[in-house]
Amino acid sequence: MRYAVIGTGAIGGFYGAKLQRSGLEVHFLLNKDYAHVRRHGLKIYSKDGDFCLPAVHAHASSAAIPVCDVVLIALKTTQNDLLKDLLPPWVADQGILLTLQNGLGIEPQLAQLVNPGRVILGGLCFICSHRGAPGEIHHQDYGSLTIGAYGDGYQPQGVTPLLETMADHWRQAGVETAVTPNLGYARWKKLLWNVPFNGLSVVLSATTTEMVANPQTHALARDLMEDVQQAAASQGVVIPTADLEQMLRSTATMAPYVTSMKRDYDNKMPLELEAILGYPIAVARRKGLALHRMTMLHQVLQHLDQQNQRPGRDASAAAPV
Amino acid sequence: MRYAVIGTGAIGGFYGAKLQRSGLEVHFLLNKDYAHVRRHGLKIYSKDGDFCLPAVHAHASSAAIPVCDVVLIALKTTQNDLLKDLLPPWVADQGILLTLQNGLGIEPQLAQLVNPGRVILGGLCFICSHRGAPGEIHHQDYGSLTIGAYGDGYQPQGVTPLLETMADHWRQAGVETAVTPNLGYARWKKLLWNVPFNGLSVVLSATTTEMVANPQTHALARDLMEDVQQAAASQGVVIPTADLEQMLRSTATMAPYVTSMKRDYDNKMPLELEAILGYPIAVARRKGLALHRMTMLHQVLQHLDQQNQRPGRDASAAAPV
Repeated sequence: MRYAVIGTGAIGGFYGAKLQRSGLEVHFLLNKDYAHVRRHGLKIYSKDGDFCLPAVHAHASSAAIPVCDVVLIALKTTQNDLLKDLLPPWVADQGILLTLQNGLGIEPQLAQLVNPGRVILGGLCFICSHRGAPGEIHHQDYGSLTIGAYGDGYQPQGVTPLLETMADHWRQAGVETAVTPNLGYARWKKLLWNVPFNGLSVVLSATTTEMVANPQTHALARDLMEDVQQAAASQGVVIPTADLEQMLRSTATMAPYVTSMKRDYDNKMPLELEAILGYPIAVARRKGLALHRMTMLHQVLQHLDQQNQRPGRDASAAAPV
Repeated sequence: MRYAVIGTGAIGGFYGAKLQRSGLEVHFLLNKDYAHVRRHGLKIYSKDGDFCLPAVHAHASSAAIPVCDVVLIALKTTQNDLLKDLLPPWVADQGILLTLQNGLGIEPQLAQLVNPGRVILGGLCFICSHRGAPGEIHHQDYGSLTIGAYGDGYQPQGVTPLLETMADHWRQAGVETAVTPNLGYARWKKLLWNVPFNGLSVVLSATTTEMVANPQTHALARDLMEDVQQAAASQGVVIPTADLEQMLRSTATMAPYVTSMKRDYDNKMPLELEAILGYPIAVARRKGLALHRMTMLHQVLQHLDQQNQRPGRDASAAAPV
């Protein structure tokens, strides 16, 4: 199978490099690191062992990418308005789309960009990784992937033979991969964690450990999980309450973790608010469900994000005097 | 009338000094500024004109304060657990209590410290003032007072002759003073502003102007006002919706303002969370009303307050690395 990677960053660069190392042909779309990567390839610093790919198929424009069997989409969701220009022209008719992006609502966006009947898969990455110098990716922890097939409105699609084949490729590339018959459930369950911990980590400037250790924030995280649980239920997705407790317990035993949203905030990158909060709130609202806490978290984060993105205003200047 | 002032800070020091200047005998309880004020008196820098009181009745302990007609209580509400030791011994039987503190639930606390049937008044201060060097108070803006009589559960008490007499003293002292027949209504209406703007100013590190200018925060401030409106209604206090709109409009035309809670946060002082959020949430909950947004704001502020109060952790260290 031949792969294209749209967005060669902490996620796309890491997984794409693993696939290439296992013998697959992989084409990488790059932006500002293009010249460097074309010349020097990719370097992965990983807790599972560092490795180099001295030569990769690097492309500065999607028009140059040959027809591939699978297109991995690994941009930040905040860049998804660029997708209509970033996807290679042949994508509308050919190839499987596999998005590795966070949150909910990505697959329906992709479905609008391609012809009806195209296979769209969603991948949930459980990984701590970030970019370093040009062409360098640092993989600190975890790394597993869960993939599932997308059907209209996240209707469960079961496990198809295609999904099993894909999973085997990834496993051969050294990525622990699970398949899910119900992508919607998997995405909602991931939101159960992302909504409270990504969101509050920015508001409180706190690690996961600090948040679960504080009784008020622990209670609030659980309250927000209940909001997610109700929102999921409004879409016909049942998340057992035991999942909430289990997730709080496992977060308490994790090493202190700076969430990806907090990392984006500290790096003055736009926050993935639409995929994590806006879309789930909107689909629940269409079913008549008002989520006061999630909405408030969204409003607060939008304010913080806008102030953070304001040119010439750095974080310390945010404090009025 | 002879006055005692418990808590000679930005509020008690300012109003007490005005009363003394108008010819009344005023006794001030002081803590760390006692020696300085006993020697040098009080100095008020005010937008209405600076003035000095070279000699004041300063007391380091409440036992030394002679019997007075009125006791002004002007501590931060976060210190109210000290009141049972800070009030002069004769307070239980004699004198009118007038609390100038913020929020809701102060008067019922006072009622527990004195004998039944004692007159307890509540005062709402609309003032921007803060402490400077020892014995110095800076009064930047506003300064008016609204006073009302407290009855069990904030039942409306009407306007008593005593209230009118008190108001006249304050007016003679140069303080614009209004009387309210319904202290509960006045306190809830003040919360309508304090809950969103005090609370969010800390969470967002923003001035009032920044908050009303941002569409999401403007909407959130209004949402929080609706919570306060509902909480008030659960106590039989009707706040017209037009009050919400009017308050948002007038906040938009105010000069950019750093709220008192934000100022306390920046000065690493404990936040007045119980009076502004905890008590209103609790009385509403007892009527079966769950306030998701106010509760979330309370939880977030409790976390931030606790981190802020943690010895050896300064605000910048709050960002994990």
